[in-house]
Amino acid sequence: MRYFLEIAYDGTRFHGWQVQPNALTVQEVLEDCLSKVLREKINTTGSGRTDTGVHASEQFVHFDSEQQLDPQQVVYRLNRILPDDISVRNLYLVPNEAHARFDAFARTYHYHIALHKNPFKRYYAWYHSRALDVEKMNEAAAILLKYEDFTTFSKVKGDTKHYRCEMYEAVWRQEGEELVFTIRANRFLRGMVRLIVGTLVDVGKGKLTVQEFEQVVASQNRSKSSGAAPSEGLYLARVEYPPHIIARST
Amino acid sequence: MRYFLEIAYDGTRFHGWQVQPNALTVQEVLEDCLSKVLREKINTTGSGRTDTGVHASEQFVHFDSEQQLDPQQVVYRLNRILPDDISVRNLYLVPNEAHARFDAFARTYHYHIALHKNPFKRYYAWYHSRALDVEKMNEAAAILLKYEDFTTFSKVKGDTKHYRCEMYEAVWRQEGEELVFTIRANRFLRGMVRLIVGTLVDVGKGKLTVQEFEQVVASQNRSKSSGAAPSEGLYLARVEYPPHIIARST
Repeated sequence: MRYFLEIAYDGTRFHGWQVQPNALTVQEVLEDCLSKVLREKINTTGSGRTDTGVHASEQFVHFDSEQQLDPQQVVYRLNRILPDDISVRNLYLVPNEAHARFDAFARTYHYHIALHKNPFKRYYAWYHSRALDVEKMNEAAAILLKYEDFTTFSKVKGDTKHYRCEMYEAVWRQEGEELVFTIRANRFLRGMVRLIVGTLVDVGKGKLTVQEFEQVVASQNRSKSSGAAPSEGLYLARVEYPPHIIARST
Repeated sequence: MRYFLEIAYDGTRFHGWQVQPNALTVQEVLEDCLSKVLREKINTTGSGRTDTGVHASEQFVHFDSEQQLDPQQVVYRLNRILPDDISVRNLYLVPNEAHARFDAFARTYHYHIALHKNPFKRYYAWYHSRALDVEKMNEAAAILLKYEDFTTFSKVKGDTKHYRCEMYEAVWRQEGEELVFTIRANRFLRGMVRLIVGTLVDVGKGKLTVQEFEQVVASQNRSKSSGAAPSEGLYLARVEYPPHIIARST
């Protein structure tokens, strides 16, 4: 039987999601704990990777087990043995062919910028003391929806076959003393959100005009993007599946 | 000239507010940084102490200097050299006789309880997996407003001359996946909020009835209170001064 697990994690002390030798990752810790709770070796497949230091307020993974699992009990037991910085929200029995990565039709990331020094957000937002022109940043962000090729905002060593993404939403909103960027697309390239945010912030600072931003996007040239925004502000916030896989109320 | 400084801090790694030998405190770090920025030895007086691990989303301190200080510049410079877990929000020139502790006519504390395991709140809320009866907790909290003597909720080794507090507000509110307790009084005894929260949570768990809670309050007997709630959920959230000292819009 196949199960989907809904988790969240604070990425601060992890070298990203995906298992790798000689570095602590969320996947490794999760698989260890799952294997202990279910008393069998469990391998997981995530909806996608997150990089070192990046958070997930919502992430989905799938795994297989022949056991009939009681979701409430497994969630309770997992949360007890998982460290404080990883939590499990739900367990779903899904169709056997459901796939956490391939069936996700949209992902949403949030990027948080703290407009004032905030001791409680030092691991959870990028602190920016200089004023940013949010209107201009939103004009520029809207341009992203007109494009399909995001080579400009991809890391050189990606393992992707193509650089096309369907962009559904890209908008900055002020929430209290933070600027929060919401970006939703069918897929994201490695490092893409942080490169987009870094470049949009250059628009907000007046280093790039909105027109120049569009030229950067259109260039399909990696060297044109600004530096990547730091990882502590970035959250994988939502992964969407068709209702025959997971039926959620919100 | 006398100045008031409005600060905030994440108490996680500090042994409370007040300077003490052989332990890192917020006051020590703040005085070091203030002395560097102002190039003179600065001593501060806080509106009150916070214990080890307790946060302050708003704290006031006063200090004296013969210099004519530019608030914006001092705030900017201080924030640059203070560590990430202490921030300065404002500097106010106040009347010479204004006193951060004696002139504060009310203090407000917040206590956060996380109702679900939340990796982002592990240093900022008390995680409580069992259901709590919030209605009963609010019935009990309302009783606090009928009493003046809070000996029950004081630490044995307090240095106070009396145990009377004027209680203005004590209420639990659900905010998203958290329960937030707001308690406002003219003064608080050492450890008082955490002892009150610990005892109210016992009401929420059904270990104490509301009537029994009232007997505990009325007993003026320290041994009747429940254990103290952990420090990570507690925030000094507001300190109020008369408008002739500090005029604030909110």
